[in-house]
Amino acid sequence: MKIGFIGLGIMGRPMAKNLIKAGHELIVNDHLKENIEDVVKAGAKAGSSIAEVAAESEVVITMLPNSPHVKEVVCGEGGVLSVARPGLIVIDMSSIAPLTSQEIAKACAKKGVEMLEAPVSGGEPKAIEGTLSIMCGGEEALFNECVSLLKCMGADVVYCGASGAGNTTKLANQVIVAVNIAAVSEAFMLAKRAGVDPNRVYEAIKGGLAGSTVLNAKGTMMLANNVKPGFKIDLHIKDLNNAIDTAHSTGAPMPLTATVMEMLQNLHKDGMGQCDHSAIAKFYEKLAGDTLY
Amino acid sequence: MKIGFIGLGIMGRPMAKNLIKAGHELIVNDHLKENIEDVVKAGAKAGSSIAEVAAESEVVITMLPNSPHVKEVVCGEGGVLSVARPGLIVIDMSSIAPLTSQEIAKACAKKGVEMLEAPVSGGEPKAIEGTLSIMCGGEEALFNECVSLLKCMGADVVYCGASGAGNTTKLANQVIVAVNIAAVSEAFMLAKRAGVDPNRVYEAIKGGLAGSTVLNAKGTMMLANNVKPGFKIDLHIKDLNNAIDTAHSTGAPMPLTATVMEMLQNLHKDGMGQCDHSAIAKFYEKLAGDTLY
Repeated sequence: MKIGFIGLGIMGRPMAKNLIKAGHELIVNDHLKENIEDVVKAGAKAGSSIAEVAAESEVVITMLPNSPHVKEVVCGEGGVLSVARPGLIVIDMSSIAPLTSQEIAKACAKKGVEMLEAPVSGGEPKAIEGTLSIMCGGEEALFNECVSLLKCMGADVVYCGASGAGNTTKLANQVIVAVNIAAVSEAFMLAKRAGVDPNRVYEAIKGGLAGSTVLNAKGTMMLANNVKPGFKIDLHIKDLNNAIDTAHSTGAPMPLTATVMEMLQNLHKDGMGQCDHSAIAKFYEKLAGDTLY
Repeated sequence: MKIGFIGLGIMGRPMAKNLIKAGHELIVNDHLKENIEDVVKAGAKAGSSIAEVAAESEVVITMLPNSPHVKEVVCGEGGVLSVARPGLIVIDMSSIAPLTSQEIAKACAKKGVEMLEAPVSGGEPKAIEGTLSIMCGGEEALFNECVSLLKCMGADVVYCGASGAGNTTKLANQVIVAVNIAAVSEAFMLAKRAGVDPNRVYEAIKGGLAGSTVLNAKGTMMLANNVKPGFKIDLHIKDLNNAIDTAHSTGAPMPLTATVMEMLQNLHKDGMGQCDHSAIAKFYEKLAGDTLY
C-alpha cells in the first residue's frame, strides 16, 4: 500500500521502518532533514512537502508531539486536507486531546476523508519491536479496514469506540503510569529513610501485588540514578494537562493526577523537562534530602 | 520440626496447612475454636493455651492482625516469653509497625529467644498455593536458618535487613498497592465520564506500561462491581497508618499515601471497612455520581 508518514521522531522512525519491512511503499516528511534521511536509508521516498506526501498516498499516518501540530499538519495551509481527495484515510497515531481529535475528524469528514485515531503506548523499545499497544477511536468499519496495517507496528490493537475514544484511553493509560511512578518513588523513599535498601525492597515485592511494568522498567532506573528518556517529563505534562481538561469538562475526580502534575511542574521548573518521567523520584529525593541510589 | 502456630485467620490457616503438608509437626492456637478445629482436621494438634504451644515447640510462628496482638501474644501475661527457654525461635509473619517489631525482638533477646519478622504479600490465593512473597527482617544467620521452613509457605523469600526491615518493606509494598488501586480507579472513571467503556480501556492498556498485578486482579473486580475481600479496607488503613507514622519519624514525604488514606477513611465511615480494598473505586463512583460497571 502507498503510505504517507509525517513525523519521524523517536517513535515515528521505528514505526515507519516496520511498515517498510512489512512491504509497504512509504513517502515521508519531517521538520528535521536528518530524520527523513534516516528513514530514506531504510527504503522510504522523501516527500518535499506535506501536500506532496498527501497527494501521493492512499493512507497518511501522522505521529506528532501534540494537538496543535496535528491540527496544523492535517487542517492547516498546505496541509493534508488542502490536497486530499475523497477516500483518503488519515491515521493519527499522536497522543492528543480527545476534543481536538474529534474536531480534526469532522474537518476530514467535510472533505470526504476518513480519520482513525490510534495513539500508542510502550515507548521506543516496543516501537522498534513492533509490539506497541494501539488504542483506536473512530468508525468501527474504518478500524477493521486499518487493523492489519496497524498490526505491522503493534501487538495489541484495540478498538475503543467513536472518535475521541482512542485518545481518552491513552489519557487513562498516562494517568496510571504517572501515578504509579510516583507511588514507587514514594514507597522506595519510605524504605530508604527507614534504613532499608530500596534494591532489597524491589527484589522482595516485584512478584507480589505491588508488581507492575512501571516497577520493573522505571523503578530500576530510579535505583540506577538513570534519567535518560524514554518518555520525557514535558510530554507527560502535556498528557496530564489533556487528562485534567477532559476531567474538568466531564466531572471525573482527579486528586492523584493533580498531585503528580504538581511534581512534574516542579521538576520542569528545575530544568528537568527533557528527563525521563521516572525522574519523578527526584522530586522525592529533593524533599527528603536523600537519594534512592 | 515441632512448630507452634498462633493465629489461624484467612491467611494463617492455609499457611499452617502447607507446613503440615511439608511434614512438620504442628501445635496450634487461635481465639476462635472453629479455626483451630479446621487445622486440627488437617493434622495439627490443638494447643490449649499460648503458653502450652510455646512450651512444646522449637519454632513459634505468629500470624495476627496488628502490632498490639503480637505484643500481647509474645510479651503479655501467659504469652510466648512467659514459658520460653533460650534457643526458641519466634517468626512473626504478621504485618505490624516496624518499631513495635524491633521492641518485641529486644524483649525476645532478653530471654535468649531469637526473633525473625517475616510479613507476607499475595493474599489468600497465594497463601493456599504456598507462593507468598515473604519479606524478612532480623539477624541474617537466623534468616538462613529459617529460609527452608519459610519456603514451605512462599515463593520469593527475601532477606531485607535488620529487625524492622521486613515490616518496612511490607509498608512500601502496601503504599504502592493502595496508590495503584486508586490510580486505576481514577483512570477508569476518567474514561467512563468521557464516554469510553472502561472494559475496552482495560483490554487496550493491560499489555503496556500501565500494566500491573493490581490492574489485572483489582481492576477487573471494579469492572464486575465485586467488593468481596480479598484484603480488607480496614486492614489497609492499619498498614497506611503504620507507613505514615514511619514516614513522620524518618522524614519521608507521603503526599499520595496521605490522599489515598483519606479515601479509605471515607469508605470506612460509609460502612465499607470489611470490603476489599479495590472498593477504593467506590470513592470515585460517589464523587462522580457514576459507576464503573
